[in-house]
Amino acid sequence: PYSAHHSKDESSTQANQTISQKQLLYTTDPLTPGSIFFLPHGTRIFNKLVQFMKNQQTKYGFQEVITPLIYKTKLWEKSGHWQNYKDDMFKVVGNDASKEEVEHDHEYDHSHDEGLHDYGLKPMNCPGHCLIFSKFDRSYNELPIRYSDFSSLHRNEASGALSGLTRVRRFHQDDGHIFCELGQINQEIENTINLIKDTYKVFGIGEEDIEYYLSTRPEDKYMGDIETWDNAENQLKSVLDSTAGSGNWKIREGDGAFYGPKIDVLLTDAFKKKHQVGTIQLDFQLPQRFELKYVAEDGTRDNQPILVHRAVFGSLERFFAILLDHYQGKWPFWINPRQAVIVPVNESHIEVAESLQKQLSGDILNSESNISPITGYNFYVDVDKRAETVGSRIKDALSKGYSYIIMIGDKDIQNGTVAIRTRDDRKIQNLKTEEIYKKFIELERSYQ
Amino acid sequence: PYSAHHSKDESSTQANQTISQKQLLYTTDPLTPGSIFFLPHGTRIFNKLVQFMKNQQTKYGFQEVITPLIYKTKLWEKSGHWQNYKDDMFKVVGNDASKEEVEHDHEYDHSHDEGLHDYGLKPMNCPGHCLIFSKFDRSYNELPIRYSDFSSLHRNEASGALSGLTRVRRFHQDDGHIFCELGQINQEIENTINLIKDTYKVFGIGEEDIEYYLSTRPEDKYMGDIETWDNAENQLKSVLDSTAGSGNWKIREGDGAFYGPKIDVLLTDAFKKKHQVGTIQLDFQLPQRFELKYVAEDGTRDNQPILVHRAVFGSLERFFAILLDHYQGKWPFWINPRQAVIVPVNESHIEVAESLQKQLSGDILNSESNISPITGYNFYVDVDKRAETVGSRIKDALSKGYSYIIMIGDKDIQNGTVAIRTRDDRKIQNLKTEEIYKKFIELERSYQ
Ligand SMILES: [Zn+2]
Ligand SMILES: [Zn+2]
Repeated sequence: PYSAHHSKDESSTQANQTISQKQLLYTTDPLTPGSIFFLPHGTRIFNKLVQFMKNQQTKYGFQEVITPLIYKTKLWEKSGHWQNYKDDMFKVVGNDASKEEVEHDHEYDHSHDEGLHDYGLKPMNCPGHCLIFSKFDRSYNELPIRYSDFSSLHRNEASGALSGLTRVRRFHQDDGHIFCELGQINQEIENTINLIKDTYKVFGIGEEDIEYYLSTRPEDKYMGDIETWDNAENQLKSVLDSTAGSGNWKIREGDGAFYGPKIDVLLTDAFKKKHQVGTIQLDFQLPQRFELKYVAEDGTRDNQPILVHRAVFGSLERFFAILLDHYQGKWPFWINPRQAVIVPVNESHIEVAESLQKQLSGDILNSESNISPITGYNFYVDVDKRAETVGSRIKDALSKGYSYIIMIGDKDIQNGTVAIRTRDDRKIQNLKTEEIYKKFIELERSYQ
Repeated sequence: PYSAHHSKDESSTQANQTISQKQLLYTTDPLTPGSIFFLPHGTRIFNKLVQFMKNQQTKYGFQEVITPLIYKTKLWEKSGHWQNYKDDMFKVVGNDASKEEVEHDHEYDHSHDEGLHDYGLKPMNCPGHCLIFSKFDRSYNELPIRYSDFSSLHRNEASGALSGLTRVRRFHQDDGHIFCELGQINQEIENTINLIKDTYKVFGIGEEDIEYYLSTRPEDKYMGDIETWDNAENQLKSVLDSTAGSGNWKIREGDGAFYGPKIDVLLTDAFKKKHQVGTIQLDFQLPQRFELKYVAEDGTRDNQPILVHRAVFGSLERFFAILLDHYQGKWPFWINPRQAVIVPVNESHIEVAESLQKQLSGDILNSESNISPITGYNFYVDVDKRAETVGSRIKDALSKGYSYIIMIGDKDIQNGTVAIRTRDDRKIQNLKTEEIYKKFIELERSYQ
């Protein structure tokens, strides 16, 4: 868990920024280098990615938690980050340290006075999740316990390396930590790899574009006993055979971290660039450092769970960048922050256009009640009522990447239909409002 | 925007913590004083509150943005926080400051060297939103621009004052900033007060429990001209008359901040305790400090928008605490993290119970596809398959606060129904699965 999550690939950043500028997706500022401002339309995409993953995590038995961002230095010493990762972390200090009362107990070590009010801004969620695990008595029949977390993470990357969405200092992961028994690794890894495959497929990334690498026990420096390592590695190999397929994954002999073996998942995008995305990292160390224990089926106490760190998207910012590359701004309908635009032919059609907008926008805007419902279908539908020609407004809509363009004039109102076309096809269909709304629902349900 | 958002009321913290311990909602740790760990069931409530508010914000034309957490000292000097609020902020420093390349330009002021790598951890979202506003050319026909943000905020409250959910160092707000013209204040404030009233009503807090206070221009120290103040205050008064009702709000003469008048919304809970929740704060200052401009309808440039800070829940942590008090752990179904539990009479009924769980859980778990849909109804349904008596499992379910308890035995399987009772009524109904699912949907849609 100490290694940076970014790969070195930084090309295509320019292209991404061009699309982002056109579609107003995100921006940055020298007042906070490496932190992204997601603009309203970028936030829509970001939130869809998060909602997508939360639902899949629910399916696989993850429980979401919300954990603090700052922890005292003492925690980072316990987790080992302070010794191994300090230079990549941001330090946090209360401006008026006197605000915190100091507990002077017997164990109080005055040599630590200096750091008493110092915190580290978290670069990872694992220590927080270990703390939660440690706060309750745990039994084998609760395992696996799976926590997910979408917290902000900060890593102090060198500023020269910062660029766009791919190298950042603040980012978010679809982070998950699984606390389980040795014999449960197999099933958990299989679930994770299946979710990875199914997820990437939703984004049009097929199995042929995914590579798996298994990194095994380093020869010299490793913790725990060889038997546990061998058992874990054999489970990983067998899962890779049954999910990725025998021969479809590579081994990196001795390349694992000292605290456990790992699987890296790389994908190749449309431009033949490789991106590290998913990771599965076994960890024999953090459970020991945090003294995590559970009661086993045989009644013995003090059993130590194994910790699995896993992410499917990896950094959401990075995955966002990959999708920008991949779709070149032509977002599929379900994730498009601009799903449809209505172009009233002239001023007299604006009222009808706005009523149509309300209907197609779905449950929130179409609600009769003062308070909109919490569940329902909702779509991003705009009206372009500027006094420009229909042609120039269509051109503008295409450049902004709307999935559908809907035109409405006298003839349409008479017929009780509207003229609708897609981004990629000039062909016009005449459809009723309910037909379009149904089509939108169908597209969202099938992730098109 | 410089005043702390917390009121002094801290009673009932004990009671809250007792409910939280029983229902496993949140926890804290001395390694991060004042930061809440939301456990899985607390996270469910927190997320429902956020989703509820996001949908209402969409209805009122807000656009969500995601903004950075750390900004260089220079930003906080610009916003005025460094001069006025520094002691309540956390400072952030890169552990290896050399990682950041320093731009040596002509304007570079060496006296600032010391703070060059220093950041402030944001206590408020406003400066970030002003930055976004300032990055684009703005025209009157885009106004009002309304940004919402659910970012983590940090304020370095004295540790002696920290307690439970009501006085914290890290919290979240249902924060919104409206950039508008003077003449648009009326409508925006009316919308906000209506949303406040409608929202509190969802939680069973009636108009009789809400108090409104208008704080007006301080006599001596204020910025801007009296005409603007008078115009703004008159709009606020007229909106309060039309929403709260004439005579139903109080004035705090001269009690406004120097940068603008404000409305505070207090609610009285079931225990007659008052809580500051919603706020509406007009701000003539930040737009000036950030040199925000827009082109007016008459073509003039350099028009300065007015900024409205507003929150309905206020601090989500604080509102969570109020709800804990208010419901005493008896959460209404729609927000209950434990909506139903199924109690199979004996081991032979576990399989049917688990199949029933899947059906009642809704669209994510009931999906046939590898990938669950992004939209749909989803409920929190557990199976208690422990080898305890039905009676003791029901007792346990009641103590945990499940809204519905569903029992299933041989007779139920024969009849094709299940026995269902509520938390508060021993009376048992025999219903079909589809009937229960329909009821759940109806309860969620009507916020019961
Ligand atoms: Zn981790
Ligand atoms: Zn504000």
